[in-house]
Formats: sequence, C-alpha cells, structure tokens
Amino acid sequence: MNYCSHCGHALSMRIPDGDNRIRHCCDNCGTIHYANPKLVLGTLPYEGQRVLLCRRAIEPRHGFWTLPGGFMENGETLSEGALRETDEEAGARVEIGPLFSVLDVVHVHQVHVFYLARLLSLDFAPGPESLEVRMFAENEIPWDDIAFRTTAMTLRAFFDDLRQGTFMLHTGRVQPAHAPHAPHGPL
Amino acid sequence: MNYCSHCGHALSMRIPDGDNRIRHCCDNCGTIHYANPKLVLGTLPYEGQRVLLCRRAIEPRHGFWTLPGGFMENGETLSEGALRETDEEAGARVEIGPLFSVLDVVHVHQVHVFYLARLLSLDFAPGPESLEVRMFAENEIPWDDIAFRTTAMTLRAFFDDLRQGTFMLHTGRVQPAHAPHAPHGPL
Ligand SMILES: [Zn+2]
Ligand SMILES: [Zn+2]
Repeated sequence: MNYCSHCGHALSMRIPDGDNRIRHCCDNCGTIHYANPKLVLGTLPYEGQRVLLCRRAIEPRHGFWTLPGGFMENGETLSEGALRETDEEAGARVEIGPLFSVLDVVHVHQVHVFYLARLLSLDFAPGPESLEVRMFAENEIPWDDIAFRTTAMTLRAFFDDLRQGTFMLHTGRVQPAHAPHAPHGPL
Repeated sequence: MNYCSHCGHALSMRIPDGDNRIRHCCDNCGTIHYANPKLVLGTLPYEGQRVLLCRRAIEPRHGFWTLPGGFMENGETLSEGALRETDEEAGARVEIGPLFSVLDVVHVHQVHVFYLARLLSLDFAPGPESLEVRMFAENEIPWDDIAFRTTAMTLRAFFDDLRQGTFMLHTGRVQPAHAPHAPHGPL
C-alpha cells in the first residue's frame, strides 16, 4: 500500500492519535487505511462416507486437490458465500449444514471457515477454476496432493467425527510451513 | 475507492477477465482491488449468572452498552483478537472459552464473532474507549441502551443457554435496521 485510495496522495506509515499500531495514514485527506484478515469460505460436501474434492485449475496449488472454497464477498452471509463457491467450483447442489471448522491462518492474514454440506445429487461438474471434481472415500484421499493444510485438517476431522458418530465444531490454528511443528505443505 | 493504492493511478470499475463481478481495477499497473467483509471479535465475559458490559466512550453509539469487541487485526488469531479487545476496553482478565456466536451483518460487510470468557477477577477498569465497565444480572441488562444488535442477540442467547444448562454455538444474521422484521436499533 503506497498511495491513498481515497485521494491519491502518497501514504506515510505512523501510529495515528489514539491508536497503538503503525498504520498507512494519508496526511492529505486524513484517511487511515487499515489492513484486516480476510475470510475464506468453503464446504465439505459429503454423501454417506464419501466427500467431494476439486482439483485446482488455478494457482496457488494448481493440480492439487481441495474442498470448494474462496474469499467471502461483500453482500453475502458466510453460508451464502460457502454455497456460491461450491456451485462455482464444483457445480454441486448441497444442503448446507452446521459450521464445521474455523481455522486461523495467521501468517497469510486469513480465517478459513468450512460448513458441512450434504450432497443432494452426484450430478456435479468442474467449474472454470477446477480441472476435475470427484468423490473420495477416506482410504482414497490423496493426502500428499491436498492443496492446503486447512483442507487436510477439515477432512481428517470429518472422518474422525464420522467414526465417533457425532459431528462437532473444530477450531484451530495453522502454523507457517516453515514452523518447527508443521514442516510440510503450504498454508 | 478512487485511486490505486499500489501505483496512485485513477481506478476504473469493470469486470476483470475470468471474474463475474464489478471490481476496482487499475489500468496502469493491473492490480485488482477487492473489497471483503471484516471480522469483528469480542468476548462475553461472565461470572456465575452475571455478564460484563462496557459503556462506549466512542462513536458509533457513544454512551450505549456493549460487550468488549472490535476489528480483528492482521497477525492475530480470532481468540487472540477477542482477548486483546477485552483487555483494551474493559481491562478484564478472562479465561477464553468456546466460540459462542457467529453473526452475519451483511449490510455493513461484517461478521461478528463472540467467545464465552470466564472472568478470572472482578478487578477490571474501563480502557480509553469505555466510559464505564460493570457486571449485570439478566434482569439488570439495559436492553434499550445496548449499542449493537449482535450484542443483544449474544446476550439473549447466553441467558437462554444458562437456563437450559448448556452453552451452544449460535449463528444467525442481523437484518438492516430498516428491514420490516427488525425495526429497532443500529447494526
Ligand atoms: Zn488521502
Ligand atoms: Zn495501479
């Protein structure tokens, strides 16, 4: 962030009056430009003991498998956004269920939110951002080719809960890929 | 948003290639500027059957009562942000509990998230953004002077759950103040 999006003046980095953090401040029009984490919304579409995954046609992680998801847009609720992404990426019709995972991805300033979603039909098809969409039983999941760690965490929680017989809300934090306790994979 | 925050050039509004929504696009450097909802984080600090509320020293809703909360910052988790706001606004030490409410406030592009938080001490004090901080039993809550509808929804859910003997996750959507089914109050 270099210029004021309101007036076009160059920005300076300083702590505004009454604040305690360095912000991008415009000394011309007085606007303070805050940077805040973004929400990424998705679903875990399932039928029986199988889940739907999409193989990504876009970067990052082109060719890797993921749950349908993407950035929340202005003008929609969390569940509307999750349904929109499920339609756009997988062409899948689902009945949205409860919140299933809420995961902090601090190093990229994101929060990932997934809903359980029961598939209403197996008549789905990849959208422009997916190469392929298909169903996987637990022993078929391509764990080494999962695009994001929040996808893997959400899938593992789903199959664990399925064995327990109860779905719960899962919360947690993804460490950076270079952190000592989480050496593998992006996000 | 009028100017590119990256290069300072005037922005144009159009649908970028491969997208389906109008965005703020820079024809000089090619940056697309997305606008996404922001997270507001707070806690519901309680001891026994009483909850902590803060009377706001700032706009919007100066003088009205609210749960401690504010915008999530880059570099923190959801629960870290909720704890930070609880410390900043109420000087309160709490043990953070489970996610309690996740509320869509679509018309202002926000999602409000509250955690249950057990007070570790009644030795709290208003921060610079609060006029006053005090404990309220259910029959003492100033319902007509609550700052935001997500605060009121979260408080009502808390006292309902307290009567039932179980705390649950509450989700929902706040309608605009002028909507036919929610005629009163801001947010
Ligand atoms: Zn400016
Ligand atoms: Zn530009």
